[in-house]
Amino acid sequence: MARRLTLSFSCPDTTGIVAEVAGFVARHRGSITEASQHTEAELRRFFMRVEIEAESLDFPAAEFGERFRPLAERFGMAWTLSDSDRPRRVIILCSKQEHCLYDLLARQVSQDFRFVVPCVISNHEAHRKVVEAHGIPFHFIPVTPENKADAYRRMEAIFRAEQADLIVLARYMQVLDEQLCRDFAGKILNIHHSFLPSFAGAKPYHQAHRRGVKLIGATCHFVTPELDEGPIVEQDVIRVDHSDTPEDMVQLGKDIEKVVLARGLRAVVEDRVLLAGNNKTVVF
Amino acid sequence: MARRLTLSFSCPDTTGIVAEVAGFVARHRGSITEASQHTEAELRRFFMRVEIEAESLDFPAAEFGERFRPLAERFGMAWTLSDSDRPRRVIILCSKQEHCLYDLLARQVSQDFRFVVPCVISNHEAHRKVVEAHGIPFHFIPVTPENKADAYRRMEAIFRAEQADLIVLARYMQVLDEQLCRDFAGKILNIHHSFLPSFAGAKPYHQAHRRGVKLIGATCHFVTPELDEGPIVEQDVIRVDHSDTPEDMVQLGKDIEKVVLARGLRAVVEDRVLLAGNNKTVVF
Amino acid sequence: MARRLTLSFSCPDTTGIVAEVAGFVARHRGSITEASQHTEAELRRFFMRVEIEAESLDFPAAEFGERFRPLAERFGMAWTLSDSDRPRRVIILCSKQEHCLYDLLARQVSQDFRFVVPCVISNHEAHRKVVEAHGIPFHFIPVTPENKADAYRRMEAIFRAEQADLIVLARYMQVLDEQLCRDFAGKILNIHHSFLPSFAGAKPYHQAHRRGVKLIGATCHFVTPELDEGPIVEQDVIRVDHSDTPEDMVQLGKDIEKVVLARGLRAVVEDRVLLAGNNKTVVF
Amino acid sequence: MARRLTLSFSCPDTTGIVAEVAGFVARHRGSITEASQHTEAELRRFFMRVEIEAESLDFPAAEFGERFRPLAERFGMAWTLSDSDRPRRVIILCSKQEHCLYDLLARQVSQDFRFVVPCVISNHEAHRKVVEAHGIPFHFIPVTPENKADAYRRMEAIFRAEQADLIVLARYMQVLDEQLCRDFAGKILNIHHSFLPSFAGAKPYHQAHRRGVKLIGATCHFVTPELDEGPIVEQDVIRVDHSDTPEDMVQLGKDIEKVVLARGLRAVVEDRVLLAGNNKTVVF
Repeated sequence: MARRLTLSFSCPDTTGIVAEVAGFVARHRGSITEASQHTEAELRRFFMRVEIEAESLDFPAAEFGERFRPLAERFGMAWTLSDSDRPRRVIILCSKQEHCLYDLLARQVSQDFRFVVPCVISNHEAHRKVVEAHGIPFHFIPVTPENKADAYRRMEAIFRAEQADLIVLARYMQVLDEQLCRDFAGKILNIHHSFLPSFAGAKPYHQAHRRGVKLIGATCHFVTPELDEGPIVEQDVIRVDHSDTPEDMVQLGKDIEKVVLARGLRAVVEDRVLLAGNNKTVVF
Repeated sequence: MARRLTLSFSCPDTTGIVAEVAGFVARHRGSITEASQHTEAELRRFFMRVEIEAESLDFPAAEFGERFRPLAERFGMAWTLSDSDRPRRVIILCSKQEHCLYDLLARQVSQDFRFVVPCVISNHEAHRKVVEAHGIPFHFIPVTPENKADAYRRMEAIFRAEQADLIVLARYMQVLDEQLCRDFAGKILNIHHSFLPSFAGAKPYHQAHRRGVKLIGATCHFVTPELDEGPIVEQDVIRVDHSDTPEDMVQLGKDIEKVVLARGLRAVVEDRVLLAGNNKTVVF
Repeated sequence: MARRLTLSFSCPDTTGIVAEVAGFVARHRGSITEASQHTEAELRRFFMRVEIEAESLDFPAAEFGERFRPLAERFGMAWTLSDSDRPRRVIILCSKQEHCLYDLLARQVSQDFRFVVPCVISNHEAHRKVVEAHGIPFHFIPVTPENKADAYRRMEAIFRAEQADLIVLARYMQVLDEQLCRDFAGKILNIHHSFLPSFAGAKPYHQAHRRGVKLIGATCHFVTPELDEGPIVEQDVIRVDHSDTPEDMVQLGKDIEKVVLARGLRAVVEDRVLLAGNNKTVVF
Repeated sequence: MARRLTLSFSCPDTTGIVAEVAGFVARHRGSITEASQHTEAELRRFFMRVEIEAESLDFPAAEFGERFRPLAERFGMAWTLSDSDRPRRVIILCSKQEHCLYDLLARQVSQDFRFVVPCVISNHEAHRKVVEAHGIPFHFIPVTPENKADAYRRMEAIFRAEQADLIVLARYMQVLDEQLCRDFAGKILNIHHSFLPSFAGAKPYHQAHRRGVKLIGATCHFVTPELDEGPIVEQDVIRVDHSDTPEDMVQLGKDIEKVVLARGLRAVVEDRVLLAGNNKTVVF
């Protein structure tokens, strides 16, 4: 695939933003391969994502940011620029359950979307062999009530040493501490095994079974200090019926958990997800 | 379609129930066209539904109940028997919104599943013409804070006079009073415009929009005195995104509301829905 | 809702199109409420749709076309401009089946999307009463092998007299003749009761049953002289199983037929559907 | 999970089958944990599946077959009996694509449904490490136009030596020869990357792209000598749009391919799939 720059931003809504951005790209002979935009009426805020073929520009791709900055400042944009030549570094955290981990490893192998896994961290040894078979380092960091603070500081050190762009909780069965949530705000993705806001917290399939719902769901969201309250990136559901026990739901749910997590991760990795206010996302 | 008897029951779980029921039918040369069963482990209760070709029996269909009673009593069954020659009488309650009403009228015309609509009751005059074009009586019963009790007693009188088997709240925007809920328990179906238990109560689409969910839903449930807490019969969802306003959701949601209500109604009319405990359903 | 102009066009792909179009709107203080774009790589063709708040422009909305023309000509655009103040005129053709007709009537009542139904044409009298209850003229035009040509010329006369923008075959069980297909190319929408290209032609549910598929579908497409070969606008499917007879499928399928037709119609009415080559659509 | 016997059979339809089967189980104090039945009207054939708690019977589970045989013969049943203590042996065949293989390995690890993978066979070395990390033997058997017959005989030898109950083509990109298809009829499952019967044969996503469909699908079916014509076990679809290239579809499709294959495999492994005539399945 040809090298691409992806510009995504939000700014106060006004007329002429698209004209200016598209005009800037056009003046430099840039070829736009994909563009999306949205206005969040209540916030009076404008959101945009533009993919540009790096080679089509009449200046070196590395200069894009510098050249675009004045325009960004004029409109008061919160903006990011990413380069397909520098794939995102995604650290995976997992526990005993295998489905999300295997699913992400498979995607990493095929590079359906571009990302690198510098390491996997787990509070169990269960998946060391499979992870290492991919040449990916595996860190066993047990978490107990006693060593919790220590354990999280060890993780934090790894996040920083590995220059992680994203941390994915692939059914990681521990709640991260507030410091991690704060320091890596907007960089930690979780998969919760319910259709939030229903059944937040522990054992959502058991809650679902008790209420007698006819669909169960999964939710990929950014982690915030408030458990299961972060901005939602992706959700999906599947059908269950009266014959499904909570244990059946646990199994059936895996198929949407892994797909919802992967779709969410892909969207974030491709800069398709922008935060709108405190708890909503725009997903282009 | 050939005349059919539908037997559905639940009883304490034990061995030999299917053998006895199937044996009874077989001894009388009865042809079973459909059979489903389920054991609710926590309740230690067994549920079954059997459809029998009426003409295949070696006794008149009208005698089935009398002949089956001893067996039912032996197993302590809660049972119902229905006859396709006597279609269910379904009264529709609606307000201004048209989608569920039109959908049910269309199904009544085509008799996709067998039911009769003895009348439609509304707190608005909006749909009188369309209802009457079908030869169905239309009762305008306005409901105000002042006349509420009166209005519900008028409705109750109609329910009884028309020998309603079921009352369907087809986006009827009034909360029935406790007396109606109690007296017609298990006979009133509602469609709520959210994926319960999320967003119970008023303006669920606005709640959904505020939380930034990526799917919206609809839930068909039996009405109980606790608002939106009754046993769920059917649910479904559709995808929305950041560009959908609450008003868009109101429109998009209509397509699942009407289909979920109709599927729920069909299941109830065909005796596929059995109550399991206080707030769950078995839907065969 | 505020008055809106919708501009949609396609043209040979080149750089700067978005910049020019957005620049034109911005120069006239126009507020863009929605914009989508797409490049069809194989055709080297660019597609765009822009919604503009009519009142935000610094010239009268009626002048938009005239003022935009030079730019359109410069890029060789095939373009249309529509005005929310002039809703589309949609003639419905139906036979005996009621589900699509009722569904469209309900949407016409609620104006979920803006359209007018100048009349309904049918080869059966079945639905006259319901249609007329809406104050919509109903034309009974029987079609037999003998009178076919005559019948279609009568329809054509109505299409022209009523200035129909669109003709919707709402499970109309007759194949239009070639002349109609040609003269109203791109203006006739059909709903076919299968997931095309599977099971084109007659009795698709029976074909589906014979093949033992686990999902059945519906397809909304533009009508062309080649039966069921026109560009696809929208499709969907629902699950069936071994217990479903062809007759069950006919009933179950209704729920997707009507929804797929309505979604297709909505997209066309809102100028979201552009033809890409001979048999594909871009649906914004 | 407690040990279970699963009896599944089909036989000419007549009255009294359920009564006799349920009676047999009940006389021996057997506890039925799940039962499903179906009559295929056109074939005048009856299908049934019964799960029995092995420990509840008043004779050793190993004797079930012998004791049931007279009843089976009386009704002319084609029947199978399986024992949860003897999980099915499933050989996986794969090529370069990883998604179905990883998905099945994950399920094998978690034993969501009970099966054993005695070995994996591939015409590429790509996945050796991951497979061997699970302690599963990996056989590299290249297939070229020249060595084809040899290669298939080597596979056959492995199938027999490993006493394979099932062979799963997990995106195995070779067409098995007729002898294998015949000798292992009803034992080879394939995943085809289209919603059959649409787009059989090579490059289905490219075919789908050319036709402009709005959904793409996957089909799990039994392999027969006629390519992509075997009885369908499971299907599903996902939405695509005009912006998806054939390459995008290849990636998006993976998520349904693996899930559809796994659901199909599970149903077969749990004896839920019975053949009805030549090309249809009953899936309980």
